[in-house]
Amino acid sequence: MPSAPSPSYAPTVVIEDLYPCLEGGRYPVKRIVGEPLEVWADVFKDGHDILRAVLKWRQEGQQRWAEAAMSLGDNDRWHGRCSFEAPGTWEYVVEAWPDGFRSWKKTFAVRVEALDPDVPVEALEGARLLEQAAIRARAAGVMDGASQLTDCAELLRTLPADQLMDVLLSEELQAVMDKFPDREFATTSRALPVRVERERARFSSWYEFFPRNAEGRADRHSTFRDCLERLDDARAMGFDVIYFPPIHPIGITHRKGKNNTLTAGPDDVGSPWAIGGPAGGHRAIEPALGTETDFVWLLAEARKRGLEIALDFAINCSPDHPYVKDHPDWFYQRPDGSIRYAENPPKKYQDIYPLNFHCADWKNLWRELIDVVRYWVDLGVTIFRVDNPHTKPVAFWEELIRSIQRTNPEVLFLSEAFTKPKMMQVLAKAGFTQSYTYFTWRESKHELMAYVNELTRSEMRWYFRGNFWPNTPDILPGHLQHAAAPMFRLRAALAALLTPCWGMYSGYELCENDPYPGKEEYNHSEKYELLQRDWNAPGNIKAFITQLNRIRHENPALQLYDNVVFHAADHDQVMSFSRATPDGGNRLLVVMSLNATAGVESGVHLDLAALGLAEGQKFEVRDLLYGGVYQWQGADNYVVLRPDGVAMHVFSVKPL
Amino acid sequence: MPSAPSPSYAPTVVIEDLYPCLEGGRYPVKRIVGEPLEVWADVFKDGHDILRAVLKWRQEGQQRWAEAAMSLGDNDRWHGRCSFEAPGTWEYVVEAWPDGFRSWKKTFAVRVEALDPDVPVEALEGARLLEQAAIRARAAGVMDGASQLTDCAELLRTLPADQLMDVLLSEELQAVMDKFPDREFATTSRALPVRVERERARFSSWYEFFPRNAEGRADRHSTFRDCLERLDDARAMGFDVIYFPPIHPIGITHRKGKNNTLTAGPDDVGSPWAIGGPAGGHRAIEPALGTETDFVWLLAEARKRGLEIALDFAINCSPDHPYVKDHPDWFYQRPDGSIRYAENPPKKYQDIYPLNFHCADWKNLWRELIDVVRYWVDLGVTIFRVDNPHTKPVAFWEELIRSIQRTNPEVLFLSEAFTKPKMMQVLAKAGFTQSYTYFTWRESKHELMAYVNELTRSEMRWYFRGNFWPNTPDILPGHLQHAAAPMFRLRAALAALLTPCWGMYSGYELCENDPYPGKEEYNHSEKYELLQRDWNAPGNIKAFITQLNRIRHENPALQLYDNVVFHAADHDQVMSFSRATPDGGNRLLVVMSLNATAGVESGVHLDLAALGLAEGQKFEVRDLLYGGVYQWQGADNYVVLRPDGVAMHVFSVKPL
Repeated sequence: MPSAPSPSYAPTVVIEDLYPCLEGGRYPVKRIVGEPLEVWADVFKDGHDILRAVLKWRQEGQQRWAEAAMSLGDNDRWHGRCSFEAPGTWEYVVEAWPDGFRSWKKTFAVRVEALDPDVPVEALEGARLLEQAAIRARAAGVMDGASQLTDCAELLRTLPADQLMDVLLSEELQAVMDKFPDREFATTSRALPVRVERERARFSSWYEFFPRNAEGRADRHSTFRDCLERLDDARAMGFDVIYFPPIHPIGITHRKGKNNTLTAGPDDVGSPWAIGGPAGGHRAIEPALGTETDFVWLLAEARKRGLEIALDFAINCSPDHPYVKDHPDWFYQRPDGSIRYAENPPKKYQDIYPLNFHCADWKNLWRELIDVVRYWVDLGVTIFRVDNPHTKPVAFWEELIRSIQRTNPEVLFLSEAFTKPKMMQVLAKAGFTQSYTYFTWRESKHELMAYVNELTRSEMRWYFRGNFWPNTPDILPGHLQHAAAPMFRLRAALAALLTPCWGMYSGYELCENDPYPGKEEYNHSEKYELLQRDWNAPGNIKAFITQLNRIRHENPALQLYDNVVFHAADHDQVMSFSRATPDGGNRLLVVMSLNATAGVESGVHLDLAALGLAEGQKFEVRDLLYGGVYQWQGADNYVVLRPDGVAMHVFSVKPL
Repeated sequence: MPSAPSPSYAPTVVIEDLYPCLEGGRYPVKRIVGEPLEVWADVFKDGHDILRAVLKWRQEGQQRWAEAAMSLGDNDRWHGRCSFEAPGTWEYVVEAWPDGFRSWKKTFAVRVEALDPDVPVEALEGARLLEQAAIRARAAGVMDGASQLTDCAELLRTLPADQLMDVLLSEELQAVMDKFPDREFATTSRALPVRVERERARFSSWYEFFPRNAEGRADRHSTFRDCLERLDDARAMGFDVIYFPPIHPIGITHRKGKNNTLTAGPDDVGSPWAIGGPAGGHRAIEPALGTETDFVWLLAEARKRGLEIALDFAINCSPDHPYVKDHPDWFYQRPDGSIRYAENPPKKYQDIYPLNFHCADWKNLWRELIDVVRYWVDLGVTIFRVDNPHTKPVAFWEELIRSIQRTNPEVLFLSEAFTKPKMMQVLAKAGFTQSYTYFTWRESKHELMAYVNELTRSEMRWYFRGNFWPNTPDILPGHLQHAAAPMFRLRAALAALLTPCWGMYSGYELCENDPYPGKEEYNHSEKYELLQRDWNAPGNIKAFITQLNRIRHENPALQLYDNVVFHAADHDQVMSFSRATPDGGNRLLVVMSLNATAGVESGVHLDLAALGLAEGQKFEVRDLLYGGVYQWQGADNYVVLRPDGVAMHVFSVKPL
């Protein structure tokens, strides 16, 4: 039964509505190392005391608090700000107390003004406050401060009433008093948690490829040793996270054939997501890819290039997974004693057995899965893309991520939950660093604006970092099917410029656009077969993608999450938005056509204030894609955009 | 450090955003006995299970939960509703679980439809679920249910596939299964508190008078025994709470004279708020009023009349209060050793010493003050009006009210905090039943509408019950100064019709309107002297007040707090609002002029939907003040209102 605190202590100050706060403090808000956290709280007290409030924060396990003064705004609301110097779990509180000296001084000034006969005795009260502060200063070893305070106290005792205020109005005196406040009657709010992650949690550019197809040869299974060229190519395009589908042994029983057919031929490579075979389970490596030594070598090569390799954590077991033999009780049994395979009737996935997270031995199951992740972390893996987390208990993910990040706060997790909004949100609250989004299906200007605003202006901005992908191995959205390069450029630009986290699945740069008939999937999906590819095939858009990533790296405004401001454009298919750093040092303005097949023209009407520009102020815009420099003035401009020519402008904006 | 739950159990269902919830569950929401509480929560789970959710509630100290099914709305939000049968502290939770049978049945239907070869083995799974439910039914002693389930299980095992769904689609079968659900994998939300109070917490009409002036004689101090006539008069006017200023011995030292002057004459009665004299302190009765026996007699007389007497709990000590001698350490000492009197420089209140709630002996001080309240509760007092609670620690009030209501949940507290919004709000959250409001200073239509909407449509409606007073002994607002009866009628009607709690300080019915020059106070305030009064003086508005209270008592819609809907009126000084019971059984429509000196005419445009009326529907309006009955149709009407004639309409509305 929740109840009010019993009076084992007597709180003096009311501290309420501490913010940011998720689900009453149940979940941490997220920050990046060095990124400011703006905190507010309602802070007030009975009576007429002047208050002081500080924001305090510390890392989990630390005793000492860092501290910063808060300032009073309207209606008893106080504001403060802090930042965090290392990844990990932090907490913050607000502490507030009545400022005895300031309160006394204010009242005393009124007394002096009113020629109150009590001025002498009240001056003694002030002297007492100064002397108590002097004791605190002395205890802190600040001897000159202590004697300054003692001297003032003596003046208060001796000076005539009409000279007292001259002493008291000294800002220097107040500054010394502020250093040694009487916090005996301080009240501290409850603590709220913050999860702090490294920069790449917020700013990352992902490139996904199948290592077994690294060479682009249909006739040869590539190995980890064959992956360097792909790494270099991705790096040249400006990507920094290389994401591999599962690298574990692939099941043989019920292995899927080409195009997800039920019967695999002897040479079919199978889906990497059907994990577990004779060579082992989630701790093993598919022999055709190489050895653990090869993988560790590749991790190191990636690191040399400034790249990280993200592994796929997919909790699927093929019928050949060691768990099936060793822990049949971890799976669901059917009434005939067989193990239940995955299905979403009438669809059946006979090559995969789902685990029963609520089996009697669930504790050991959960521990084992967490240990699997730790195994790869210990080998040097620092990012995981998690497959379908919404089909496993949220509590499991919360435990897993907390457990891993407790020892390895550098490890990041991307949630692949294409599902209902509340589930996507709670997975992010429970700890996922980044999340796939609905971006892939947001096409119109209205849809895109509404969605970006929801992600970056609602409470979601405190915990949900959307990672925008134009395609994945599972998804070739309708607008890309049979589409030409302009559409691929358009969707890449949207993803890369609207959010600091974006990713693409390889083949996108080659404008691969062939759907499986009637589905939102690729024909001859790489999930089930080796593909023949020329990674530099004519018509590729690698140069454009390289430009996008270069602009992202060169412009800090594009590395922040919640700074998108949309501007008005008359044409339905012209979208304009800007993003700036808080100090205004970097300001980007994007104007782009959403029509990938026909030219459009439109008036664009800038929100000058959002760009930090005064009405009528001249400003320079520099086209970062096409190189022109123009001088503009006023909110209204006109653009002509063509799919095969200049389809978008990415301007850097400089006030003149 | 807040942290995620460690996995000592494996929660299955996510339950979030449980509402109503104040400050993360720190404070209870408030309800009246029998009044429904609408609860919602986001409830969802990984995977595709069909869920069930129930709302559970129980009183503090009880083991057993009451329970009601919740229903699923949009976007994973579930709704439920409960009510509470007794005053006290209650709590509610949401419990949810995967409904194994429903989930199985849904999937099974797809299988049957798809002629899935697995139908027979999956039918066995269904049989297993039915048999497990049969075991639960048997354990609950429901033998016919158990055999019905066993029979069904047998059918599932034996019937051919194409006949199975006929068995399963039986609503009777589902109803039996719903009675014995498998809740092994249920998850329960955290508990949120509810403070439940009796009806009068929400619906009350207060009449304040000074018992010492009950007879209205300047030459004679009345006693409790002289109060019956005043009680009867108040009752006749329809009031149900009689509020007395403090009845304790009044201090002599620095007693205030007439009109708050610093020097009292020998016959001056002093302010009842300067408590404590030779006859005692907060547990004693001013001898001039009578004895404790007299007071208990008066309480009983009031009770016979259906009235309650509310005492004033004012934590002010005169210099003659016993605490000053017995507990000088409970007060503030000045540097010269004297006890600090109350002041708000340059104003001084030498007749009052404030207590130091944070003195070293604070625990005993707090306990003593709580014991004082308990003393009067034990004598039979059930309502307290608390003087200036915002000048004492909020934590103290929370402790006091919780402590009293734990044993005496019938006791109500009215907060007299005319102060900043956040403080007024937190006092209500901390436990005050009702609160004085800014109503007294809200004059224009816009101000009144905005304020009522803030009180009854914001989060405040969950905890803050505004009690509207047109005057108090401290406040004769500008608009009443030198005003005539129409203004007194207007302000009384606003208070009585906009909120179920209103009150007036005696003399209002006589239109007393003489201000102390330049102040918002009464001249010759009754706080400092005995007044000569004719309680039936010509020009009084007692008949009108009686009508207002009669209408309030006869119309349940006026006894609810958060049902005010404003309607449009063209004229700036014409205000229209309606109030209805949730079932539409009682609907009131008010149209009133805010101009107390000149006639106004205005179009009024009703929100028909808010009145439960269809477009074009005819309806009857019955004037509850003036008695006419009219048939109306449509949203638009025209009113002519005159201060000395029909200044307002209070219609009961009946659809035809």
